[in-house]
Amino acid sequence: MIQPWKMNGDKVAYDCGFFQVHVQQSASPVTGKEHPFYVLSTWDWVNVIAFTDDGKIPMVYQFRHGSGDFSLEIPGGAVDQKDGDALDAGKRELLEETGYEAREWHSLGKIHPNPAILNNTCHIYLALGAKKVSELDLDEAEELEVRLHDLAEVKQLIQQGKLQHALVIAAFQLLDLFQKSNPRLF
Amino acid sequence: MIQPWKMNGDKVAYDCGFFQVHVQQSASPVTGKEHPFYVLSTWDWVNVIAFTDDGKIPMVYQFRHGSGDFSLEIPGGAVDQKDGDALDAGKRELLEETGYEAREWHSLGKIHPNPAILNNTCHIYLALGAKKVSELDLDEAEELEVRLHDLAEVKQLIQQGKLQHALVIAAFQLLDLFQKSNPRLF
Repeated sequence: MIQPWKMNGDKVAYDCGFFQVHVQQSASPVTGKEHPFYVLSTWDWVNVIAFTDDGKIPMVYQFRHGSGDFSLEIPGGAVDQKDGDALDAGKRELLEETGYEAREWHSLGKIHPNPAILNNTCHIYLALGAKKVSELDLDEAEELEVRLHDLAEVKQLIQQGKLQHALVIAAFQLLDLFQKSNPRLF
Repeated sequence: MIQPWKMNGDKVAYDCGFFQVHVQQSASPVTGKEHPFYVLSTWDWVNVIAFTDDGKIPMVYQFRHGSGDFSLEIPGGAVDQKDGDALDAGKRELLEETGYEAREWHSLGKIHPNPAILNNTCHIYLALGAKKVSELDLDEAEELEVRLHDLAEVKQLIQQGKLQHALVIAAFQLLDLFQKSNPRLF
């Protein structure tokens, strides 16, 4: 039976503002030998698949500095201190990034963006009955375009490699599983 | 029409060995104003969904230092210099981490693990006709357990929140889409 590693030391080696680079010294349960592991700590994240009553999903298209390219995504962001919880953060991000509010919210699950190097969780929500109620309210370094797609188009964009964000693709897998268990909602 | 940002500077602020933390200075196409962006550069990754001829998927269960917990995943890792390409890396990782080789390989697509903060691509492969041919061949700080699950079990584990790795969940979404376009293979 496989055992957990024992963390003997943890220090912040570099602070990037919205994430911190930690060096952890952890001992193998098998050999007892210590190894260094680099881990990033950051806030939890939230992502929202919203549907209008006529089956359109408000999505955001924006330039991403990691890939150096544009990325088609669902609205989302960090769960921060002004949010009561991840659901509040989801409602806030949907409104800020797309101008939509929704009637009915369901959790699709919680996933690890990358358990090897990130310490955080991403909360995925489904929002039904979404309606445009306001203009966008973006952060200073945020520029994005809202695009509406139906679910069949999203699946096609994933298959064509035009939607490549792993967290977004994972959210649509969770949606599929939720739909199968809750057919009456759709 | 939304425009790309212009990178005016890029320096490595901290080197973690298998990834480097960059600070990029990039100018908004709208305001012209420069903002700092933290980006991690690292190798491409590869992940493999393999099936034995009787429908079992060899998976790996291991302790992950980011989440500080165990994680159920498909075999995979970094595409490194000893690999000719991502497919070679997939074959190597499947063999090293599970001891399996496979008869038939298909690309399921390329995704971005996190286009906001990571510069790399994760290549996802499907391997059919997998067979156990050897023992595991692990790196010094790698300890893992091989577990066999069929596809229905994997879907259930995702739905129950017992399989939470975003890249793995995304790989199964790509598999679903591939299966729909290639029903004869399954």
